[in-house]
Amino acid sequence: MTEAITSRHNPRIKLAAQLRDRRGRCEQQRIIIDGVREIGRALDAGIACIEAFVCEAIMSDDGHHLQHRLAATDCEIVLVNQSVFEKIAFGDRSDGIVAVAKPPRTELSSLTVQDEMLIAVLENVEKPGNVGAVLRSADAAGVSAVVVADAGTDLYNPNSIRASAGTIFSMPLIACSSDEALAWLRRHAFTIVATRVDGAVDYADMDYSGRCAVVLGSEAQGLSVAWKSDDIAAVLLPMRGVGDSLNVSVTAAVLFYEALRQRSTKVSTVQ
Amino acid sequence: MTEAITSRHNPRIKLAAQLRDRRGRCEQQRIIIDGVREIGRALDAGIACIEAFVCEAIMSDDGHHLQHRLAATDCEIVLVNQSVFEKIAFGDRSDGIVAVAKPPRTELSSLTVQDEMLIAVLENVEKPGNVGAVLRSADAAGVSAVVVADAGTDLYNPNSIRASAGTIFSMPLIACSSDEALAWLRRHAFTIVATRVDGAVDYADMDYSGRCAVVLGSEAQGLSVAWKSDDIAAVLLPMRGVGDSLNVSVTAAVLFYEALRQRSTKVSTVQ
Repeated sequence: MTEAITSRHNPRIKLAAQLRDRRGRCEQQRIIIDGVREIGRALDAGIACIEAFVCEAIMSDDGHHLQHRLAATDCEIVLVNQSVFEKIAFGDRSDGIVAVAKPPRTELSSLTVQDEMLIAVLENVEKPGNVGAVLRSADAAGVSAVVVADAGTDLYNPNSIRASAGTIFSMPLIACSSDEALAWLRRHAFTIVATRVDGAVDYADMDYSGRCAVVLGSEAQGLSVAWKSDDIAAVLLPMRGVGDSLNVSVTAAVLFYEALRQRSTKVSTVQ
Repeated sequence: MTEAITSRHNPRIKLAAQLRDRRGRCEQQRIIIDGVREIGRALDAGIACIEAFVCEAIMSDDGHHLQHRLAATDCEIVLVNQSVFEKIAFGDRSDGIVAVAKPPRTELSSLTVQDEMLIAVLENVEKPGNVGAVLRSADAAGVSAVVVADAGTDLYNPNSIRASAGTIFSMPLIACSSDEALAWLRRHAFTIVATRVDGAVDYADMDYSGRCAVVLGSEAQGLSVAWKSDDIAAVLLPMRGVGDSLNVSVTAAVLFYEALRQRSTKVSTVQ
């Protein structure tokens, strides 16, 4: 460990700050992770952190623990003063530590297909915060993988990481086109359940057993025609009030937990 | 209609801008509503708008429709220029129109208790955005009323209104203490279902029929001891991943929709 960096114009600081933007992340093939919980979950998931910027003046106890954990890996600890830290950190939730890491890469072809497998597909969900919120629900409900199809954003946007509460690192996360996702799901004989405001079937009347994919579109536009086909079920959530839509992460959670409920009930019946 | 107000120091503009803060809303006993959808839903719900500030330069077509609708009520239309509008409006989602209204007031005693009634109770949920998001889910799932107990915020915070997508105006919304809510629920023989991370019962094994109240705490602190009692069921959502919590609006939606599913199934069986 060396002296703290005190210049906001230091080239390493400039590179790290560029990771706030998609362009910087694409060019450097790196991502930036804020927060003790999020960095901890990245480490838990085996993500290699390359460097961590630490501002001791504002660091929490949890931050110190994490720093020791990081120092025991190949991660380089870089001390910075508060002014420099503010240039690279996100708002006030950073706990005095941010890490730079290589983004994990998962391909559809690397997924191990199993008999009871629940997969979520998000098509064209523009807001990174929504992607992250769906990931958090998917993690909780035992979803096996999340496919982001025709993404309007890169997968590891800081807002996605934050909204996922760090679960983004342990969840297999795949970016591909809707056509690729659809072809893969068909090849592996998944039941495909698309959520549509004009869906014909109440989501609760659907059978989610076996290999099943739940497909969700953006709040503004819904799903593209790619997901309209005779072999794709179109389900909807009943809407009993004055509102005409739900947040995509809320819709996702209701479907994921209904799938989990049905699967758990089956297991109980067998025992 | 008169000439547009062009001074940010105009006393009416100052009063309206104060409604962004809780203190201003308390002192004036008024609330401020941004957005065509939200103001429209307030009107639909019978909320009296006192005045509407309109910036024609940035107004959408939907905004013009709404302006005509407002003009047909006792609402005064006040034209303002863009600089003035920016002082009173919220970010970029205002559609060129904001309205000032009297906040609706509902008391527990004014609720009509019915046999099949699902009520949501939120205790000590600090973030107005979370309150609004729960309201949006409650509206969709057919919840009859939402009780905000021991609130850390006022009910009609602009962030609550926004996150509720305007459903906050049609949903009976009651502020009281946890003790008052509990006494009322017991007096009316509600089944009380409290969500706790240490809950003993899987939420899906719970019977939500009849009069039922779903009680949710803050993400940070959960529910207070007031909601721990032999006559209160403690349920939890299974957590199958690495995360240890869900957003309160997500937990709420899963429970509301499970209650709705059970109630719909019952109705079908009877028919």
